[in-house]
Amino acid sequence: MTEQTGTRGRSGAARPLPKSHRTRERILDAAARVLSSKGYAGTRLQDVAAEAGLQAPAIYYYFGSRDELIAEVMFVGAHRVRGHVSDVLAALPAGTGPMERILAAVEAHLRYELLISDYTTASVRNAGQVPDEVRERSAAEEAAYSHMWRDLFEAAREAGDLRPDIDANLARFLILGAMNWAAEWWDPSHRTLDDLVAATQQLVLGGIGRH
Amino acid sequence: MTEQTGTRGRSGAARPLPKSHRTRERILDAAARVLSSKGYAGTRLQDVAAEAGLQAPAIYYYFGSRDELIAEVMFVGAHRVRGHVSDVLAALPAGTGPMERILAAVEAHLRYELLISDYTTASVRNAGQVPDEVRERSAAEEAAYSHMWRDLFEAAREAGDLRPDIDANLARFLILGAMNWAAEWWDPSHRTLDDLVAATQQLVLGGIGRH
Repeated sequence: MTEQTGTRGRSGAARPLPKSHRTRERILDAAARVLSSKGYAGTRLQDVAAEAGLQAPAIYYYFGSRDELIAEVMFVGAHRVRGHVSDVLAALPAGTGPMERILAAVEAHLRYELLISDYTTASVRNAGQVPDEVRERSAAEEAAYSHMWRDLFEAAREAGDLRPDIDANLARFLILGAMNWAAEWWDPSHRTLDDLVAATQQLVLGGIGRH
Repeated sequence: MTEQTGTRGRSGAARPLPKSHRTRERILDAAARVLSSKGYAGTRLQDVAAEAGLQAPAIYYYFGSRDELIAEVMFVGAHRVRGHVSDVLAALPAGTGPMERILAAVEAHLRYELLISDYTTASVRNAGQVPDEVRERSAAEEAAYSHMWRDLFEAAREAGDLRPDIDANLARFLILGAMNWAAEWWDPSHRTLDDLVAATQQLVLGGIGRH
C-alpha cells in the first residue's frame, strides 16, 4: 500500500465528508458490491439499500433512478482510477523517462483498482451487460483513460524505448486486460500486492521494452 | 482461422450431429449468449428459448433446471478450450521446445476462445456471480486447465527458457487474464486474429522468456 492510497478511505476521498456526502458514498459502495455480485439485470435497489443499511426510498434522495445509480458506479470507478494514475504521473520527478512513467502507471493502476475492487469487478463483469445509455458517461471516461495510456506508449515509442516491431495498441489493450482481470483472481493471502505489482511491471517491461 | 478450428462449427463439433444433439447445442449456444448479455441473475429460460427458437418447456427435455443449463454453459466453455489447447499441444512435432509449446498454447487458446466468444464472455462476466454449487463442474475444469498451463511453465523453467527472476504463477495468471479479456475488446474490423495472436505471443515471449 503506498502512502498515496493508504491515507484515503475506500471511496478515495482524503478529507472528512459532510454526512449527506458520506451517505451518498455509502450507497455507491453498496451498489458497487451488489452490481459486482448480481450483475446489471440482477441489481435491485432494495438489495443496495439493505447493503447500505438504509431504506430503499432513501436512495431516491441521492439518485433519480436505478439506472442513474448504476451509471454513477460505473463512472466513479473509471474516474477514480484515472484520477489516481494521473496524480501519480504528475508527481513524478521531471525527467522521469517514458518507460519509467509506464511502469509507474502500471503500479498506480493496480494499487487503486484493487483498493476499490468492488468498483473494478462491477465494471469488468458488467462491461457487456449495461445498456449503452447507462454506459455513456463511463464509456467517455474509459476512452479518456485509454487516451492517457496511448500517450504514455506514444512517448515511449518516440524515445525509442519500445521494441520497434511491437503493435503498441494491441499490447496496451492486452496489458490493461491483464491488470483489470487481476481483481478477479488476486488473493492477498497468496501473494502481496507488491509481488503482483513487481510481476506485472516485469511482464510489461520485458514484453514491450527494447532489450 | 486455423484448419483445426475452421472445419468445426461454433459448437466445436467436427461431425454432423443427430437432431436431438443439435437442439441441445442450440440451447447451449443461446444460453451462452443470454448469460453473456444478461448475467446470471438476469438469465431467464424464456429468453433462452426465444433465442434458440424453441418453446421454453422444450428446454426441460434437455436440462433439469435453469441452474443445470447455466452450469453446463460454464462447463462446456472451459472444457472445449482445454480440449482444443490439449489437442494442439498433442499434435506438435516431437522435440518442440517448452517455450514454443507455450506460444502454441497461447495461439490455440486465443483462436478457440474467440471462436466460441459467447461462452468466453459468459464465463468472464459471470465468474463472480454464479453461485458456488453451479460453478462446481466448471471450477474443476478451470483448475485442470490451469494445471495444464502450470505444467507448460514448469517445463519451460526446467529447460532454462524462463527468466530466472520471474514469478511464474503470477505471470501465468496475468497472461491468461490478458487473453480472456480479449473477448471483450478485440474487434476484427481493426486487427486480424493473426495480428492479435502475434502481439500476444510477442508480449509473452518478451515478458517471461530469457533474453
